Amino acid sequence: MRFKLRPSEDAFYDFFNQAAQNLVRGAELLTGLTVVASAETIQSISEGLQEVEHANDDVTHALYNKVNSTFITPFDREDIYRLGSGLDDVMDAMESAGNLVYLYGLSEIPSLPREMAEQIETLNQLARLTAEAMPKLKGMKGLEPYWIEVNRLENEGDRQYRMLLVRLFSGEYEPLNVLKMKEVADDLEEAIDAFEHVANTVETIAAKES
Amino acid sequence: MRFKLRPSEDAFYDFFNQAAQNLVRGAELLTGLTVVASAETIQSISEGLQEVEHANDDVTHALYNKVNSTFITPFDREDIYRLGSGLDDVMDAMESAGNLVYLYGLSEIPSLPREMAEQIETLNQLARLTAEAMPKLKGMKGLEPYWIEVNRLENEGDRQYRMLLVRLFSGEYEPLNVLKMKEVADDLEEAIDAFEHVANTVETIAAKES
Amino acid sequence: MRFKLRPSEDAFYDFFNQAAQNLVRGAELLTGLTVVASAETIQSISEGLQEVEHANDDVTHALYNKVNSTFITPFDREDIYRLGSGLDDVMDAMESAGNLVYLYGLSEIPSLPREMAEQIETLNQLARLTAEAMPKLKGMKGLEPYWIEVNRLENEGDRQYRMLLVRLFSGEYEPLNVLKMKEVADDLEEAIDAFEHVANTVETIAAKES
Repeated sequence: MRFKLRPSEDAFYDFFNQAAQNLVRGAELLTGLTVVASAETIQSISEGLQEVEHANDDVTHALYNKVNSTFITPFDREDIYRLGSGLDDVMDAMESAGNLVYLYGLSEIPSLPREMAEQIETLNQLARLTAEAMPKLKGMKGLEPYWIEVNRLENEGDRQYRMLLVRLFSGEYEPLNVLKMKEVADDLEEAIDAFEHVANTVETIAAKES
Repeated sequence: MRFKLRPSEDAFYDFFNQAAQNLVRGAELLTGLTVVASAETIQSISEGLQEVEHANDDVTHALYNKVNSTFITPFDREDIYRLGSGLDDVMDAMESAGNLVYLYGLSEIPSLPREMAEQIETLNQLARLTAEAMPKLKGMKGLEPYWIEVNRLENEGDRQYRMLLVRLFSGEYEPLNVLKMKEVADDLEEAIDAFEHVANTVETIAAKES
Repeated sequence: MRFKLRPSEDAFYDFFNQAAQNLVRGAELLTGLTVVASAETIQSISEGLQEVEHANDDVTHALYNKVNSTFITPFDREDIYRLGSGLDDVMDAMESAGNLVYLYGLSEIPSLPREMAEQIETLNQLARLTAEAMPKLKGMKGLEPYWIEVNRLENEGDRQYRMLLVRLFSGEYEPLNVLKMKEVADDLEEAIDAFEHVANTVETIAAKES
């Protein structure tokens, strides 16, 4: 029998894993917006994102309750809060992006700009990277490639966002559609930035443990 | 005669009460924008907000001076700063919204969109809730319903903001008027978010004291 | 021979000085955008800003490495990080503004609005003030006029930004050009705000040392 010094710690890692899996699912749902889609399809994607977002709220609240009711936590309480809320920020921004595509009736546009599809692909990569990194929090080993790659992808996302605005302001779209798509682009960019905040938090935690 | 262990503490609570009363006054002034108003009325509302904003700057600076000149503070110095600056952030955002309605000449529009009037009603509710909560900081009792309700209202504000943008981008308004009203909406949304930051700070303080 | 208690400290101050000098150079480059400029001139300004931005990334990373490899730092590690990243945030926002003027093809507009030239002049003043203040970090003396003046200039910048939006929304420009210039204005405003964050960090450091 393996001796477990702090058995209740495992629950914390489970929460982070669950949240990261929700982000993988959320990013996959957003991918459905990058192909020509009917109004019904877009509505069902938005509703799917809302479900995952609610599920992640539950995970986040359960994590906070666990922190409050646990005497010894695997790392600093404030870092656990920051990591949980950072993962939740990603989910909120992705859900908002999907909801806006639905609310603004953007299905009337033939397809979303290529640069926006690139943002969504970046979000999928970030989500998978984050889901692979979370189980390594327990041993706090081998995490450096994760945050380096996240920083690289965030820079890539900045460039995609900048070029998306160039496209939106080029005269190709109606002014009101430009405004609608810019709101969606802002949410996607916010989700990408939030992934970087998560990686920064992990880097901070790792630095304290080393 | 009642024995007062730390008499100078009362000054801190007075500052928080004064700031919250300023926010109640500011939100009431904004309500004047939700009815059909002449350019002169809008100008006088904007000037009224600037006066309250200056008054609140004085309160905030007096609070900071008090923190710097006091050896024992009722709770962590950084939390006092955060609470004072959080209340001030609300005031700044409300003043900015009123000023923009004036500067952009939005009196030419028949009336502000219904969803914007809803944002302003939410601000009034948040201001009154905050003003009722501040006197309870002293005993640090019975504050939980306050931050729960603030969080609920902030979610409601998010929904109002989202639906306001749907309205603004619907084609009902000229593109330049859309841009003007979006700036105002952003400031109102920022004020609502700032009320939530204040409530989060109060929750943090209460958690440390308990 | 002068006795040096903590000789390696000098390296930290050198990094802050270098970063501030980069900001002076960046602000000077932006000034080139305020006169009538050809597409080629704008491209070369944008490329110049990218070079300074890369150079500043190197300074920032070298500072972080120095913090991580030094046992005794001249002031709190987190404040050194905050100061370094704050200076870097200014540079990023200035580079972004210049890049957008180039990417959006804003050379087709006769000249940038006067209020935007004022923002850039404010950035130049802030950069020079910051460069004069950095060498005083070593003795931590005489810094108060610096942060007071930065706060004044940031307020001035807020007013310039507000009046710039009034101008942009006045009907003088095409809607798409309004959107383009607003993105540039937002970056310039972000750079001005970032200078204030730097000054706030310096004030915090000075308060701890006193």
